[in-house]
Amino acid sequence: MTQESRLILALDVYGVEKAEDIAKQAEGRVRAIKINWPLVMTSGIGVVQRLSRYAEVLCDLKIADIPNTNRLITQKVNEMGAWGIITHIFTGSDSLKAVKEASGEMKVFGVVAMSHPGASEFMLGFRDRLLALAKEAGLFGIIAPGNNYEVTKELRSRAGTLKIASPGVGAQGGSASDAILSGADYIISGRSIYESDNPSVEMDLINEEIKQAIGLK
Amino acid sequence: MTQESRLILALDVYGVEKAEDIAKQAEGRVRAIKINWPLVMTSGIGVVQRLSRYAEVLCDLKIADIPNTNRLITQKVNEMGAWGIITHIFTGSDSLKAVKEASGEMKVFGVVAMSHPGASEFMLGFRDRLLALAKEAGLFGIIAPGNNYEVTKELRSRAGTLKIASPGVGAQGGSASDAILSGADYIISGRSIYESDNPSVEMDLINEEIKQAIGLK
Repeated sequence: MTQESRLILALDVYGVEKAEDIAKQAEGRVRAIKINWPLVMTSGIGVVQRLSRYAEVLCDLKIADIPNTNRLITQKVNEMGAWGIITHIFTGSDSLKAVKEASGEMKVFGVVAMSHPGASEFMLGFRDRLLALAKEAGLFGIIAPGNNYEVTKELRSRAGTLKIASPGVGAQGGSASDAILSGADYIISGRSIYESDNPSVEMDLINEEIKQAIGLK
Repeated sequence: MTQESRLILALDVYGVEKAEDIAKQAEGRVRAIKINWPLVMTSGIGVVQRLSRYAEVLCDLKIADIPNTNRLITQKVNEMGAWGIITHIFTGSDSLKAVKEASGEMKVFGVVAMSHPGASEFMLGFRDRLLALAKEAGLFGIIAPGNNYEVTKELRSRAGTLKIASPGVGAQGGSASDAILSGADYIISGRSIYESDNPSVEMDLINEEIKQAIGLK
């Protein structure tokens, strides 16, 4: 299942024990486990190696700094053996290039559109230019909302070979099948899995939903 | 000097021993020590407490995520007793509000303009709206380039009571006195200090330069 699954588990928890407990249940059920700063700042970046025993790790660091700092962050994540990294694009092509160049074999995803309401104030308006930069930089994929299907559909039609990973599924209101039908390649879901009574069953259900949606396309 | 100094030392180094060595020399010479992700990801956020023995700590995390994640990051930094935190504004008012609400007594600085070339591709064009959001959210200050005096001058004229902290001084080409004369309240300098043969002397020189520039205003 691991290689085939289109599910990315967002492990947005503090504390490495809790993270590891859920990661164990994710083994063989997800394409990758996504972690972010709250976990890294308390556990240190070594948590990537620790979780990699169960599934590949996608570091959702939403990098948004000057080129030199972006490079230092990315190098360190690459050294830890992460599968991928998520960076912002809006800080410009030099900052993005710094991430790409330091990424080694990692998959680099650039944020084109986000899933919270405030994203409409600035970012949504220039998503075309962000998408263009993602292509130009040769990224592996982009982030587009799994709870705003119109935006994802539109981006899919112009994203070429870029993969689309979509957060916002589950607790933030999106449905896995609708996100897949809008063009998402990966579904990112967190709270609805790790806050459920039985995370393994929840992941199996989402995988099944994704599989059926792919069948409908 | 600590309270009076307008110098913020950017301690953009990996490794807590190196950081602590330079922090010791900064004691009594700076308003704060600025740290960023490369140090936090290797040392853990506990490095804030360790460095706070020598000077107040400003966490330059350029936070740029959804409200819930922004809140978790900020809470953790506040628990560590940091003096301040740097957040992006472009992710929108809800994300910014989440940082402000979780910041406790910390000074919150919002990024309005950055010092690298790529900043002109997106951010520079909507600096007016970013500034407006910073005011609306009741931030302590904003980040504006110390190597692009026209932008800082213009922002100063409309920033009201917001403080301006300016990176880009030293290795990135800005001069401390010119940045102060353009309206910066704090000068952020890193490489030109910690890569010098004698960081203490270098900090004393910059403090003297700032003092003279303030005298000229």
